Parts: sequence; C-alpha cells; structure tokens
Amino acid sequence: MVGYVGTKKWESAISVEPSPSPTIESSQVRGVTLHRLSLVEDMRGNLIVAEFERQVPFLPKRYFMVFSVPSSEVRGEHAHLSCHQFLICINGFCAVVADDGKNRQEFHLDGLLTGLYLPPMTWAVQYKYSPDAILLVFASDYYDPNDYIRSYDRFLSLTNGAQK
Amino acid sequence: MVGYVGTKKWESAISVEPSPSPTIESSQVRGVTLHRLSLVEDMRGNLIVAEFERQVPFLPKRYFMVFSVPSSEVRGEHAHLSCHQFLICINGFCAVVADDGKNRQEFHLDGLLTGLYLPPMTWAVQYKYSPDAILLVFASDYYDPNDYIRSYDRFLSLTNGAQK
Repeated sequence: MVGYVGTKKWESAISVEPSPSPTIESSQVRGVTLHRLSLVEDMRGNLIVAEFERQVPFLPKRYFMVFSVPSSEVRGEHAHLSCHQFLICINGFCAVVADDGKNRQEFHLDGLLTGLYLPPMTWAVQYKYSPDAILLVFASDYYDPNDYIRSYDRFLSLTNGAQK
Repeated sequence: MVGYVGTKKWESAISVEPSPSPTIESSQVRGVTLHRLSLVEDMRGNLIVAEFERQVPFLPKRYFMVFSVPSSEVRGEHAHLSCHQFLICINGFCAVVADDGKNRQEFHLDGLLTGLYLPPMTWAVQYKYSPDAILLVFASDYYDPNDYIRSYDRFLSLTNGAQK
C-alpha cells in the first residue's frame, strides 16, 4: 500500500452534505432573488455548498470572475435575452443594481454566502467594487453576443411590450 | 426613461468573450489534468472565463467552497466512483495530492487561473491550506454518500482490478 500524507482521520461525509438552511428572498424586481447559501461550520474548516437547479436556479454552462476593477468603474449595463446569471462576490464587496423596466433595486454582495439571481430580461449594473473585490458569475449559456441588449431604450421597449 | 447609475460608457462585449489561450497540462496521474485558465486583462478590470464541457471537462451539478481550514488539517482522503471534480483555490494557497493507485503527484493551487481536474476513481487529499485559503470545487453530481470510496485499500483493490 502506498504511504499517505496525513494521519489524522475524520469522517468527512457530513462536510459536503447540504445544510437545510439556505433561504431565498424575493425582491422588488421581477424574478430577481437574493440567496443566502448554506454554511457548515466545523473545526476542521468551514464549508459552503450550493446545488445547481436547486439553490442556484439553473445549470451553468460557463463561469467568469471579474476582479481588479477600479472603484470608479461601472460594469454590466446590459440585459440578456435568454441567459440566466447568478452572482457571488467571493472577496471584497460590490453592488448590483437590477432593473426590470418598471422597478429597480440595489443589492449588496459582500461574501461567499450571498448569491444574486438575475433572470433573463433584467437590466443589471455592477459598481462600487472594493479594491479587493472578486465577482464570480455563473451563466446558463455560453457567450453569445446576440444575447445582449446593450441599449436601455431597447430594453424598455422590449419589457414594456412584454408586459402589455 | 429611468435615470441610471454611471455615465461612463464602454463596450463590454469583449470582456466576456473567452480568450484563446487556456492550456491543459497532463500529469503523472491517470486522467488528472492541470488547467491554466484564460485571463483577459483590461484597465476597467480583469476577467477570467471558463466554459463547462470545454475548459472545465464537465457540467457541474454542484459547487462547494472550503475555507478557514487549520493548516494542520488534511481534507479529502477519498475517491469518487463516478463524480468528476474541478478545484480552484480562489484565495490563498493549498496543495492537492492525486493518486490513481499506481502513480501520485502533488499539485499546488495558488490562484484563480489554475484549475485541477480530478476524474472519478482518483484518490485525492487536500492539505497545506494557507490561513486565507478558499478552495472552490465544482462537482459533476449532487451529493451522494454512496459515491465515496473512503478506504484506500478498497480504492487500490478497485483500481488494480480495473487495470488488470
């Protein structure tokens, strides 16, 4: 038998079993939800678990991480026609404004336990990045430039049309 | 039209288009690969993009993050029968030893740009966590206690059987 690093044994099964306590908060913006993820605290290390299509409302095809954003920068400023996104600020802080064409709300993302779900047809802006901020985004689709709505006026005409 | 945060406009399409430069390195351990992910550097902020079933070899059903692990702790010490995993140390540092029953190798995970792919039937141990380490793990399956092989002897007998 190959000798192995570490002699301290412990039962790790519990550490990856989802805790039953995640919560989902609705918002003023259509379909946008704020997710408080499960934390399992343990002397051997803490664990956060989230399952796709469960705590995160979709299966991701892609992720991206944004970091080293100057505090004056505003990112996002677009909506997606069909892509779903889930945002977690895994270090530092940033804020997200989400807008459904009628209502908008600012959300503060400040840690591993908070996820923001943005359904398609949500105009979103990320800003107020702290110098150390790292924003992790899960996306339901591969990159497709045709999925972007970059004009707020076009976004409004599409959402108002849809809501009539 | 709703007034909007931020007046500085820029074209953000380029920032989420995958860079063509990710690389995949093979290892001494069967099926285990070290992935150098794409970085897009930009004055407005840097971006890392990875696509599932492309740079990451599977679609994830789940992710978990491990942090606040005492430096003396050893985590993992198991293999999976069918679950694929992809590990990124998104803050700080940790090391992973991967073992296929014949060969083993230590990998150093020290940042957002390095991902380690562990196929099923890979014995893996994580250790040498720095105090600020955060290990992000994508898993191809939901949590299933029956997918774990927790005995190294059983792992060896299964892998040796498979390789005969």
